[in-house]
Formats: sequence, structure tokens, C-alpha cells
Amino acid sequence: MEYAVRGPIVTRAGEIEAELARGVTKDFAEVIRANIGDCHATGQQPLTFLRQVLALCVSPDLMVDPHFPSDAKDRAQRILNGCGGKSLGSYSDSAGVQIIRKDVADYISKRDGQSASFEDIFLSAGASDGIKTILKLLMTGKAGNERAGIMIPIPQYPLYTATIAEYNAYPVGYYLDEDNNWGLSIAELERSLAASSSKCIPRAIVIINPGNPTGQVLSRKNIEDIIKFAKKENLFILADEVYQHNVYAKDCEFFSFKKVLTEMGPEYKDMELASFMSTSKGYMGECGMRGGYFEVIGLDPKVRELLIKSISAKLCSPVTGQALLDVVVNPPKPGEPSHDRFIQEKESVLGQLFEKAALTSETYNSIEGIKCNTVQGAMYAFPRIFLPEKAIKAAEAEGKAPDFFYCSQLLEKTGICVVPGSGFGQVPGTYHFRSTILPPVPKLKEMMSLFRDFHINFMKEFN
Amino acid sequence: MEYAVRGPIVTRAGEIEAELARGVTKDFAEVIRANIGDCHATGQQPLTFLRQVLALCVSPDLMVDPHFPSDAKDRAQRILNGCGGKSLGSYSDSAGVQIIRKDVADYISKRDGQSASFEDIFLSAGASDGIKTILKLLMTGKAGNERAGIMIPIPQYPLYTATIAEYNAYPVGYYLDEDNNWGLSIAELERSLAASSSKCIPRAIVIINPGNPTGQVLSRKNIEDIIKFAKKENLFILADEVYQHNVYAKDCEFFSFKKVLTEMGPEYKDMELASFMSTSKGYMGECGMRGGYFEVIGLDPKVRELLIKSISAKLCSPVTGQALLDVVVNPPKPGEPSHDRFIQEKESVLGQLFEKAALTSETYNSIEGIKCNTVQGAMYAFPRIFLPEKAIKAAEAEGKAPDFFYCSQLLEKTGICVVPGSGFGQVPGTYHFRSTILPPVPKLKEMMSLFRDFHINFMKEFN
Repeated sequence: MEYAVRGPIVTRAGEIEAELARGVTKDFAEVIRANIGDCHATGQQPLTFLRQVLALCVSPDLMVDPHFPSDAKDRAQRILNGCGGKSLGSYSDSAGVQIIRKDVADYISKRDGQSASFEDIFLSAGASDGIKTILKLLMTGKAGNERAGIMIPIPQYPLYTATIAEYNAYPVGYYLDEDNNWGLSIAELERSLAASSSKCIPRAIVIINPGNPTGQVLSRKNIEDIIKFAKKENLFILADEVYQHNVYAKDCEFFSFKKVLTEMGPEYKDMELASFMSTSKGYMGECGMRGGYFEVIGLDPKVRELLIKSISAKLCSPVTGQALLDVVVNPPKPGEPSHDRFIQEKESVLGQLFEKAALTSETYNSIEGIKCNTVQGAMYAFPRIFLPEKAIKAAEAEGKAPDFFYCSQLLEKTGICVVPGSGFGQVPGTYHFRSTILPPVPKLKEMMSLFRDFHINFMKEFN
Repeated sequence: MEYAVRGPIVTRAGEIEAELARGVTKDFAEVIRANIGDCHATGQQPLTFLRQVLALCVSPDLMVDPHFPSDAKDRAQRILNGCGGKSLGSYSDSAGVQIIRKDVADYISKRDGQSASFEDIFLSAGASDGIKTILKLLMTGKAGNERAGIMIPIPQYPLYTATIAEYNAYPVGYYLDEDNNWGLSIAELERSLAASSSKCIPRAIVIINPGNPTGQVLSRKNIEDIIKFAKKENLFILADEVYQHNVYAKDCEFFSFKKVLTEMGPEYKDMELASFMSTSKGYMGECGMRGGYFEVIGLDPKVRELLIKSISAKLCSPVTGQALLDVVVNPPKPGEPSHDRFIQEKESVLGQLFEKAALTSETYNSIEGIKCNTVQGAMYAFPRIFLPEKAIKAAEAEGKAPDFFYCSQLLEKTGICVVPGSGFGQVPGTYHFRSTILPPVPKLKEMMSLFRDFHINFMKEFN
């Protein structure tokens, strides 16, 4: 079990920070962490309204404080009314506070123009918790070629391989097409399924849209084709849609799998689908709060009962994260006192991400020996590095993967911390790294400049 | 997989509440929930200082508010300084914010008079999360008689049986001695281990002290004997010590397994031990915050590495819960502005629990056909009900466990919600229920009076 975004490069980054703090002299003054989508840690400010409502929930004495706007107070009181003893300190139902589940259902209904039921909504500690819960449900509990096969993209977010390994399932990897802006081809899905048919019982397909680490946004047509494929193969769909607010490319739009599936007509209505969402991404970036939800449709009633039992042992997800989620799905409305400020802060974060997405891929593409697809959405670039044979040999001599070797040198020489592509998976013989687009614009520009110099020197050394 | 404290009786209690809200007439006006240790839901007020620090962490704008005391501000700033971007919205290290882990280590050092290292401290989403993490680590991943055997008390908290089932381990149940105030006898440990030696590979022993659902507090001598037994049998010790602040009986004192083990001398120093703590219990009762920690000592470095990998996939426990935990382990000191109020509020909660512990066991014992051990600690009574043969037959006729039948009738006739003993385990042919001691004193008195009338009528009906 490996977890690249928390792997040895990141551990080493922490050691370097400690060395710098102790006064060790280096060619750089600080580590630039572009290894994980940790928005606030890289300088993004929390949205005022989210924090006001949460502070009021934590300390209801503040309800009399005139500095807090009335709409924040109303929302906080409404959340507290849904909690046992009107306290965030009470356990919620295992599925979450009911009023918040209802607000999530309303949010989905509005987003999709399709009704959603609160009974299908389960609040979770971030999306990771929900994804693990659903994957666990799909396991056969059997070994060998009776293991559950879970189709996952390559490259993928390491939560999937880690969880699949943990539950002794079988990862059925399908490659995203780098030459087609990380698009997803049905022929490749069919190839990968056929290639592993003797090794497992295929149960589910994972789609990350917008993509992590690839940043692609699926077209509606592509989603329709995936749904048809899943129906034909009788696969449960796990739609990781945590970046649904993070779409930057002009010709791209986010469509939820639920919306598309529902609009494809009655023939598809019995399919099983879970969609995951988080408070950690989007414009919120509230990673530490561990808020999230999943919506699950089409479940057999017996499986649903098992799901409810399985979440009972955790008692409930953090109620603070639930409260925060409520504000995300039920933001200030036009005319409410906090509306304009909320929109302004939200647009400011998303506008900066838009700018940084373009800056990142353009800069990478301007460097010889690097090729980077457009960052259409999410928070990452996944550029390909064309490594010289000599560098590959040098890496092998040290017993390291070539992209790991490259990222290690980048960290040691510049303080830039990114994650080797081998932590996400890639076509054998190709090398990548994942870099977030999160540092503030001036810092990101500095990082790109440091990176360019490093890369040129690296290529010189190994060519 | 069953989870009694969230089982069918509790589901039915929710339905009854909904019926009452709809205006359905019953013999009672409300459900009294004595099924789960959910302190705030039953009326306990959060401690002012805990919530002040958390509100300041959530909304640092409040640092300029003169209503907040300076020691709350100092602690909040110190916590924020330990967070990425000084925001609770950043991921922490998987093991938790380092300064908070250091404060936990100091707390343990002071509690035990024995040094503790922050590197052995892992912050978790409540104790349940930590317990699951450690149990998972102990699994062999094998089937049949090569499964990991985990010794657990009977009765026990259902998290243990649920997790053991989830990971396909083997539960080695040892009975607590009801006639000896739920004491733990080494002869019984030896008997239970011998009885399952052909069914599993024994790996660990779970001790809940103070006990849940039994409320007993182990003597130092008893703990020493358990440690000797674990050493002889080469067992990992899981010490569930979440009720360490909840000791009521005059002749009882809490000793941590870590303290006793360390004081037993160098011969024992290489033993493997994990101790679990939570912000949900004690005087805090902050269940919804999902704060907690575990300390783990004696781990093989390779196992330790595996532990760190396994927690990485969750990214981190909720940072709000971590912040709250920091205040619990580092409360106001004498002379600080909030000290006196903090102590007064803490003592008030613990004083009421002391009173309610005595009230509960005394009342149960005053009723014919009920026998209840002294509630020495924790938050529960686990009285034995001597059911008439006719009641047992009536239950069997309905396909129900006799204690489930009894608790169902109690709920339907009085609105009192407690959990049948069969959800925790009990000696076959004996019947119990678990009832919390949490309702406020007047409500608890009302509950005991309703209970007495119900029980007398039940016995009349079935005798």
C-alpha cells in the first residue's frame, strides 16, 4: 500500500523545511509545496460566510454579536435546530443531520434539474471516507479470480489503488489518452476489461471528473458512452465529482453522471451509481474540516441496509464538517445581506484558479522536453517529461523510478515539491509529475521560473 | 455485522418521535434516549472555554473581540500557528498537527508520571477511528484457523465485534464476572484463550477501562495481572481508556495501562500497547466533533511504517476535532483568566454524573427482579433482568431475543430507549440492558419512575 501524495518526497520536503529552520544553508529559502491540493496551506483565504456560520454554530453565544450578519445567524440556528441538544457536540445520525441531507438533495436537484431524495444522501468525512465506504460494499470477500474487479483510470488518485489493495480487490486499470487531452475512450475500457476478465469479477468503474491528476473535463457525449458501457457490463458507477466547481476551459462544462444517466431515459434508471463531493476542493478548499457527501441511487434494498450498518460503526462524520457542507450547498441568496460578499470572494478564488490553470500549462509547454495538456478543470497539471536515456540509467543505478529521481532532484535543488507520476500510474516508459496550480500567482510564477532553470540544467547534465 | 447502539430499537425510537410529532397519542409525551453516550443531546452544556477556543480558531477575526478571554486567544493562536496557512481548513499531517501531538504527550506524561513522546501519538476521528486503525494492523489477512484472534470482553462495546467481523478476524470472548462487579479474572482469560486456540492465532487483547457497558473500574493489581498474562501469551494490548475522566466510586482510581506497564520494570518495556482516548466522553461530551488520539508503544519499526501508510489514505482526522482535543489536554492553568470558570463547569458535569451513577444503580437495585452492579465509572448501567419463563416463551414465539422483547415493550409503553444486553454479549441464559446515566437528574428520576412502573406491570403480566 503506497500513498504518493504523502510519500517519501513529501516526507523529505518536511525534513528540508526543518533543516532550513535550523539554519542549514541551501540554494533556496523555502519549500514550495505543490504536492497536494491543500488550498489554505498555500495561502487561499477561507470564505468569510462559511466561517461565520461555523463560528456561530460552535459558539451560539455569538448570536447576539452585531458583527455577524443575520443570514449567517439564521443558517447557524437552522443547523443547530437539526442537532441533538442544539449542539454540534452531539452525534448525528450515521447518515448525517437530516436537514443538511435535505439541503444537499435540494442542491443536487437544482444543479441537475432532476429531483434528488435526502434518503439517498450520506454525509461523510471528506469524499475519501465515502469512496472507501462504497468500495468496501462492492468487495466480494473472495480471493483469486473471484475477487471484485474495480475499473480505475491510469493515471488515478492513489486513494483508489490503496483502498482496492486494502480490501484485496483487483484493480482493472484503463489508460486515459494523453494525446487526446486525457480523454477516455470506450475501446480502451473494453480492452482493459477483457484483459482482466480471467483475474476478477468486474463490479464497478471509477470515473474522476474533472480529472485528478489529469485535469480533464469529460464531455456529455463521453459520459453517455461510459454509462452505456457500464450498463452493458453491469458495472456500478463511482463518479468522483469533487471538482465539480473547478472547470476553467471555455469549451468545457461539468455534467454530473446522475444528470446524464437520468436524462438517458427509463432504460438506464435502475443502474447503480454513487457520486462523491467534498468541502475540500471547489472554491472552499476546506480540507481540514473533513466535510463531504455521497449520493447513491439504484441500490438493492438489502445492499442499502448493509451500507447503513457499515456506516454505523463510525457513529457519524464530524458534525462541524457537516455544518460547513450545509453552507456550501445552501449559500447566501440574492438579496440576503451576505450574498454580494460571498459571490465576490467565491469568484475571486475561482478567477485566480482560472488564471493559474492557464499559466501552469502554458509555462510547462514553453519548456523543451516537457509537454502538458490543457488544465481544463480540477487543481493539477500532469506534465510529461521526456527524460534522456542517461537520466533513466542514473535513476536505475540508484534503484529509483526515473520520475522519482527527477522529482527528488527538483526538490533538493529548488525546494519545489511535486509528486512523481509513478505514484498515480502512467503508460510504461512515459514519465510525468503532478503539480498543483494552487500557490498564489506571484509564488507560482517564481516556482515556474525556478522549475525552468532546474529543468534546463537537468537536461544539460544528462544529455 | 450488527451495531446495537444504532440498532432496530433505536430506529423504532426515531419512528415514535416522528409519530409523536405528527400528533399520534401515546401514554407518554416524549422518547427518553438512554441508548447512547451522547451527552449534549441529553442536555449537557458544552464547556465555555472549549467552544471559545474553537470559535476563535474557526473565525480568527474574533481575536479582536474583547468578550473572549486572553487565554482562549493565546491557545487558539498557538493552534493556528501549527496549521498550514494558519487555517483549520488545511490538511494536517496524517498523524495530526504536531503541536497538538506534543500537548497530548505532555498530558500523558503528567497523568502517568512517565515520559511520553509525541511521535507515538496519532490523532484520530474519535476513539473508534483509532481502534479500527489498530485492529486492522493486527489482522493476518488469512482465513480459517490462521485468522487473527482478538480477545474481547463479554459484554463489550459493539465496535469491537463489528470491526473484527469486517476484517474477518476471530473474536475470542472472555466473560467479565458479574457477581464480582464485572471484575476480570485471569483464570477466565486463560480459559477463553485455550477454548479458541484451534480456531485462530491469538494476536491481541482488548480491555475497556472504565468499562463499557459495565461501568467497572479495574484495580491496579488487576491491570498488572492482565499485563503479565498478555506478556506470557505475546499479545498486543488495546487499552480503551476513553472514560479515564469518568470515575465515581470512592475506592476506585484510574490507572492507565501504559503507566502500570512502565512501572512494572524493564522486563515489560518491549510490550506492544495502544491506548485510546476521545473528546466525546469525560466531562467534555463533544461526540460530534470526532476528536481523539491513540498512543502506541513498542511497535516494530516496520509495523509502525505500515501504520503511517494506512492512516495516509484518510489524509487527516478533522482538524476541528484536533483543536478541541488540544484544549482538553491543555486546559486553563491556575492563574489564567478562564481557569476558575473552567474548573467550575468541569466539576459541575462530573459532580452530576457522580450523583446520577449512584441514583441509577440504587434505583435499579430497589426494584424486584433487577440486579445492578455499582456504576464505578464510565456512563452506563448494565442491570440484569430476571425474566419470567412466560416472558421468555412469549419472546421466542415472536422470534425475538428475550431482552430485545423486554426493551421493545419498554420503549413502546414508556418511551424509554435502552439497548438490549444481547447487543453487547452476556452469559447465555442471562438478560440485561444498557442504560446511560446521562439524562439530567429530574429527567433521570422521571425515567426511573416510569421504568419501575413498567417493570412491575411486565412482571405481573408474565408471572
